[in-house]
Amino acid sequence: MFENAELGRTIDKLTYEREAPLVRSALLEAQRELADSRLSVVVIVGGVAGAGKSETVDLLLEWMDARGIETHAMREHTDEERERPPMWRFWRALPRQGRMGIFFGAWHAGPILDRVFNRITPLQLDQAIARNVEFERMLHREGVLLVKFWLHLSRIAQKKRLKQLEADPRQSWRVMKRDWKLFKLYDVHRSVAEHVLRRTGTEEAPWTIVEGTDRRYRHLTVARALLDAMRGRLERAKADPPAPEPSPVHLVPHPVNVIQRLDMGLALDPATYRKELHQAQGALGLLSRRLRKAKRSLILVFEGPDAAGKGGAIRRLTAAMDARVYQVISIAAPTDEERAHPYLWRFWRHLPPAGRVSIYDRSWYGRVLVERVEGFARPDQWQRAFEEINAFEEQMVEHGLILVKFWLAITPDEQLRRFQDRQDTPYKQHKITAEDWRNRDRWDAYEAAACDMIEKTGTESAPWVLVEGNNKEWARVKVVKEVVRRVQSALGV
Amino acid sequence: MFENAELGRTIDKLTYEREAPLVRSALLEAQRELADSRLSVVVIVGGVAGAGKSETVDLLLEWMDARGIETHAMREHTDEERERPPMWRFWRALPRQGRMGIFFGAWHAGPILDRVFNRITPLQLDQAIARNVEFERMLHREGVLLVKFWLHLSRIAQKKRLKQLEADPRQSWRVMKRDWKLFKLYDVHRSVAEHVLRRTGTEEAPWTIVEGTDRRYRHLTVARALLDAMRGRLERAKADPPAPEPSPVHLVPHPVNVIQRLDMGLALDPATYRKELHQAQGALGLLSRRLRKAKRSLILVFEGPDAAGKGGAIRRLTAAMDARVYQVISIAAPTDEERAHPYLWRFWRHLPPAGRVSIYDRSWYGRVLVERVEGFARPDQWQRAFEEINAFEEQMVEHGLILVKFWLAITPDEQLRRFQDRQDTPYKQHKITAEDWRNRDRWDAYEAAACDMIEKTGTESAPWVLVEGNNKEWARVKVVKEVVRRVQSALGV
Repeated sequence: MFENAELGRTIDKLTYEREAPLVRSALLEAQRELADSRLSVVVIVGGVAGAGKSETVDLLLEWMDARGIETHAMREHTDEERERPPMWRFWRALPRQGRMGIFFGAWHAGPILDRVFNRITPLQLDQAIARNVEFERMLHREGVLLVKFWLHLSRIAQKKRLKQLEADPRQSWRVMKRDWKLFKLYDVHRSVAEHVLRRTGTEEAPWTIVEGTDRRYRHLTVARALLDAMRGRLERAKADPPAPEPSPVHLVPHPVNVIQRLDMGLALDPATYRKELHQAQGALGLLSRRLRKAKRSLILVFEGPDAAGKGGAIRRLTAAMDARVYQVISIAAPTDEERAHPYLWRFWRHLPPAGRVSIYDRSWYGRVLVERVEGFARPDQWQRAFEEINAFEEQMVEHGLILVKFWLAITPDEQLRRFQDRQDTPYKQHKITAEDWRNRDRWDAYEAAACDMIEKTGTESAPWVLVEGNNKEWARVKVVKEVVRRVQSALGV
Repeated sequence: MFENAELGRTIDKLTYEREAPLVRSALLEAQRELADSRLSVVVIVGGVAGAGKSETVDLLLEWMDARGIETHAMREHTDEERERPPMWRFWRALPRQGRMGIFFGAWHAGPILDRVFNRITPLQLDQAIARNVEFERMLHREGVLLVKFWLHLSRIAQKKRLKQLEADPRQSWRVMKRDWKLFKLYDVHRSVAEHVLRRTGTEEAPWTIVEGTDRRYRHLTVARALLDAMRGRLERAKADPPAPEPSPVHLVPHPVNVIQRLDMGLALDPATYRKELHQAQGALGLLSRRLRKAKRSLILVFEGPDAAGKGGAIRRLTAAMDARVYQVISIAAPTDEERAHPYLWRFWRHLPPAGRVSIYDRSWYGRVLVERVEGFARPDQWQRAFEEINAFEEQMVEHGLILVKFWLAITPDEQLRRFQDRQDTPYKQHKITAEDWRNRDRWDAYEAAACDMIEKTGTESAPWVLVEGNNKEWARVKVVKEVVRRVQSALGV
């Protein structure tokens, strides 16, 4: 894999001086086109110490308009990062549309070094690789151009280079103790890097391996590769057909489905309701304190038709907890910054720190519910949303977050009764809009989409809990009890 | 001050049940109006333990639409917060227009507790008070309605309440060790709180002191006060005249001014330039590593006319440093999220972590330069920007950030020459736009605004360095040397 990068390739001064200005102005031109497009660019610069990673980044910053570029050299995790799944730090750093983000090593560096220093097993490395491939595929589909460079040096060239740098008083600071430490493991590093590069060099996000010995060769090779990638992607974007006008889809649910199967007659009498709710709330109050101490987070997702009782159920949960512990997050229209990033960005960005309870009144599932049904998302967008959401939730669960998803079901008749009640009660009127009535007309499509969603995203570690919601008392007690049960089981109490 | 809050005020059940639904629907109505307005609301809930702070917040979340509200209970600082000035955590939590943020204790709680436990001197407390008053005044002027509650209990009532809570198994978790620790210092706490409340109860942001003993009284009092404040502010907003169309202002600089005084003939010959630049860059490279180790941040601000050489000077700085250490930040048009927050929010939000070098190509001074000259900011806005900016920079410097601000000056003739050169060089063409030519016509106004800015914001700890920029070599060497000098002096090396 690195054979071509150990040939001592060079570019002579004359060629460089002739070529460089051309590539440079072409890069600037491409960057200007990028700025007006709906694309963004992520450049990854990885490689061995001394191969010129930061010089390369300096060059790009110098040749292009540095104002449209952010660089990210993430080393130690901050505690805010440690409190979230590992990919959070990268999600928050993703460039917005029209801009470029340069990442040193990016999400590949951590797993490589962890494996070289034997902090993770080969199996764990492969897991990380799979995750990264999945992540890059998502980025690619969301309009992020990935340009990945690996700057390579042969063992002899690296040793020579590190010594050279150390001998130069203006450069010696570039060489750190850990560089020599890693150099001692040159063969291991090379073999792990090769493995990672081979597995993560996909069609959507290929690696360009660049021999790092000759400065001019390195610079021109990187700049040209970036230019080609940008030009190609910008061209393809122009050829894309314009997004069609959103139009609602026709969907019919299977007559026998998980929602239809629910026993909507389930109910609680007032006395039992009060007793059981009281008891479950008491338990939840104590558990929420334990969560805080254990630094475990709880994420609760509520979906369901309008007036299904999401708000009421949420209030029964929050009533049991200190307002300092929980946050109710409601998903409104995305801001322009959110629109300028991949779909899940706005959920990642608000991921809570450890030990908190976050309650989502509607959620990332909007993509496969309202956006699918109303045609706001293209078929390819909502279809791949299932895997993207599963990957997102998997990362939460792996990080120790406790995730419970509730589908609050009601019958169309019951919804109608509640809509009418809302219109008659002054402080409830704000809850009902013309949109609610419109959505009601599309009941079947929503039910079909919900069944599909439950099937595709209900996993063992992040299951959907279906709640019979016609009787509010039943629904509320079921929700609170279920939360208690899941938290108890997660905390092992 | 607390006399009225120790009278055992209560509200009977009948009155409460009659009043509560009215206040509740009025609050919802006000919240809906808020959502469509350009205002935001910050509610501060402070007070003694057991007085019902979280119950009050729970109530507000229940009565209003929780989806438009964020709650913030900030206790321990995260390391990302510790790496920035203390107010950063509050800035990043400010609600956007149309929304409400509820803060437990907010910026007042820290200084009060620090003083009670003798971690700060009375003088330091007063300093913190002054800062908070300044901060709240700024918020008020930027369209943030501040509603501040202090929930009070007499010593006897507090003791009784804490014991009651402890005896109730469902509530006992509300009482923590530190609550009793603080109770032992009841008199000190009371007197410090009184001092803080008196000094921070301003016309723009008054405190409402609420007796915490009776639940119904507390709830209704808080809800009514919030309602009154919101209604009043929303009414006044309606009465505001619409913003006038921006129109450029007429400004003439004083013929004898700091910019005119510069000796624009200063120049370096190529050989001296190379030698001195080289030397200064070497020193800067080493210093940038020291900064990182010392966890000190360096903020460099560049302002000046178009084509004054800001970009060139910045590149001479970045060339001396590892790309991992620095970030070039260019101030473009604000996003809608940024526009929906107070002016300085977008600068606070991007404040770098410790040990980094941030280079601003244009900055928060846009408010008193382009926005003033072109009339994008109202006179009251740019006028108060001076004090807001000074407060912002003071906080950076106090936190140990090293701040150096450069004004790169050129003469109109030299600018013309450079504009023409840019138009003739392919990879420089992107740097010149029609706007640049327009701005050039308003040279005098910009010069006058710049002189004003230098006078009003040049402080000993965050001075303006005026750079004679007609000769690029001179300017670049001066900039790099100056940065070296300032960093050396700050690090004491």
